[in-house]
Amino acid sequence: MISLTDLVARIVPVDRGIAAATQDRLDHKTKPRRSLGRLEDLACRIAAMRGTLDPHLSSKAIVVMGADHGVADEGVSAYPQAVTRQMLLTFAAGGAAINVLARQAQARVVVADLGVKERLPAMSNIREWRIGAGTRNFAREPAMSRAQAEAAIAAGATIAEELIRNHVTLIGLGDMGIANTTAASAIVTALTGAAPKTVTGRGTGIDDRGLEHKIEVIERALALHRPNSNDALDVLSKVGGFEIAGLAGVVLAAAAHRVPVLLDGFITGAAALAAVHLAPPAIDYLIASHQSVEVGHRVVLTALGLAPLLDLDLRLGEGSGAALAMPLVDAALAILREMATFESAGVSDSGA
Amino acid sequence: MISLTDLVARIVPVDRGIAAATQDRLDHKTKPRRSLGRLEDLACRIAAMRGTLDPHLSSKAIVVMGADHGVADEGVSAYPQAVTRQMLLTFAAGGAAINVLARQAQARVVVADLGVKERLPAMSNIREWRIGAGTRNFAREPAMSRAQAEAAIAAGATIAEELIRNHVTLIGLGDMGIANTTAASAIVTALTGAAPKTVTGRGTGIDDRGLEHKIEVIERALALHRPNSNDALDVLSKVGGFEIAGLAGVVLAAAAHRVPVLLDGFITGAAALAAVHLAPPAIDYLIASHQSVEVGHRVVLTALGLAPLLDLDLRLGEGSGAALAMPLVDAALAILREMATFESAGVSDSGA
Repeated sequence: MISLTDLVARIVPVDRGIAAATQDRLDHKTKPRRSLGRLEDLACRIAAMRGTLDPHLSSKAIVVMGADHGVADEGVSAYPQAVTRQMLLTFAAGGAAINVLARQAQARVVVADLGVKERLPAMSNIREWRIGAGTRNFAREPAMSRAQAEAAIAAGATIAEELIRNHVTLIGLGDMGIANTTAASAIVTALTGAAPKTVTGRGTGIDDRGLEHKIEVIERALALHRPNSNDALDVLSKVGGFEIAGLAGVVLAAAAHRVPVLLDGFITGAAALAAVHLAPPAIDYLIASHQSVEVGHRVVLTALGLAPLLDLDLRLGEGSGAALAMPLVDAALAILREMATFESAGVSDSGA
Repeated sequence: MISLTDLVARIVPVDRGIAAATQDRLDHKTKPRRSLGRLEDLACRIAAMRGTLDPHLSSKAIVVMGADHGVADEGVSAYPQAVTRQMLLTFAAGGAAINVLARQAQARVVVADLGVKERLPAMSNIREWRIGAGTRNFAREPAMSRAQAEAAIAAGATIAEELIRNHVTLIGLGDMGIANTTAASAIVTALTGAAPKTVTGRGTGIDDRGLEHKIEVIERALALHRPNSNDALDVLSKVGGFEIAGLAGVVLAAAAHRVPVLLDGFITGAAALAAVHLAPPAIDYLIASHQSVEVGHRVVLTALGLAPLLDLDLRLGEGSGAALAMPLVDAALAILREMATFESAGVSDSGA
């Protein structure tokens, strides 16, 4: 099993000099300086992440992790728990939104079962890394043991390292887990100190009364477990989820290998926040794909200090926002690689 | 020459019933209802534009129109006028931002010279539709005659109709013309009644004094010509540009053929605003690709009632924002076409 301590030790901040040199390279292209705005920032950041002035991200993957949540017993979701398993099977069959969007983005989808309640049939395209048959109900007891949280992180890191060995150079994160917005809200509350009601939203679509109940469940759980905000592993084990801890592991391994990570919405944001608490320099390797409708997502992105590329009122998860942002990453790097300079094109520069 | 009256008469509003039926189709897909947010709206709008429940946009083009502006003599741009011609040559050579971004979006780039000052060498990949050797300086005299404005619109419509005959089903708009933000600001002021200072920005990068001067030039021109806000052709001829009138022609022909149009930034927005003044139902066929940094663009999008898909601090023009938004259009239609339904995938629906 990959050791968390070793993983964290391998993550180093990016070289800001490479970002500055990349901006200089962009400033010689045939366009007014900075006229491609945030696309230029994206190119600079990715060059710095990769540690090269000539970054190529040829192979892309979306890692979608699924698991069940004992806290679903509290009636915090609009969907029955069986949907987690059904959706993983739909991912494997290729009919879900993430399959469609990943095909459009020319990214492969890697589906991993971190612990759905009822075991899936053995399938060649679902990776089995089951930490348990769903977490325990954290309204009553800790979601998992500390050892399970570490095992989930190691599972995510192992999956990411395998992709990276196979030349994947851009990883998008996706999630599936009925009731996982409840876990994510609890994690974000614990790690940021924000009030539960400011980070708790409607998930897949609960009504006003459902939302009130969900907030109350989270408040009770936090009062019961008192997770230590300076110990992300404590937070993940008490109120987390197997797939959330797994996604944190993907972030850590990607950052250790200088591979950019495209976040999706609220769940993957909570996972990334936990990863950054475990290894602060990991922040340098994260890209926020979109601003989700889920209210707590804004709190997560503010805490991470990341500005989202897209804002399309999405609230699906699965990695859908990450897939939709991939063409922007491709475009940013194509600009850096393929555009002519003022000199080569014989165009007058204003110096502006 | 295509008659403006005939063109306008052929533009009809979309069938809202098709948009509603498309939303119903999306509501059966394996995802919480409306969880793909504005991507769903986009799919519904395009289905309605195309008049079919099963829209395909297989072939895409970006029409980039270039022309020179006499008002450049007033010193309103950071770049010399020769850059218009140099950039059209760069587009033809394939080295500009729009070439790179259109390749990424799998769209062809169609470059048209509507009247740069110094004639370009004959080139197979620049369409010649020269209305004149640049407009006249509208700080002193009308930019063009009414007949020239009509000819520019007809030129744009002819180019669009040729593309549509060749099975292009999504047209992005792009522009190139040193000093054309001055013309666009004057048009938008005249058509919306907004104050010049609220619609005049820094274009390619003028400083504070330059901006003040630019506003003053626009105010003087509008006081001199008093364009009739109820007559978009009067506005275009007095303070417009050949490429702006040409782009309005592209919009009108595309709308007449039920082909969606992806706007770019401020210049193409001003052209679209003029087109919608000439033919109000044309609005149904417009998609706002992005929110530009150029201050007047917000006024244009508000006047059109369109919400931009992207907001990336772009201010380049050329159709760069339109190209960047094309993958979102592809994604929206792929969701509609390829995603499984709850029934087909055997997934429990919450009804939420």
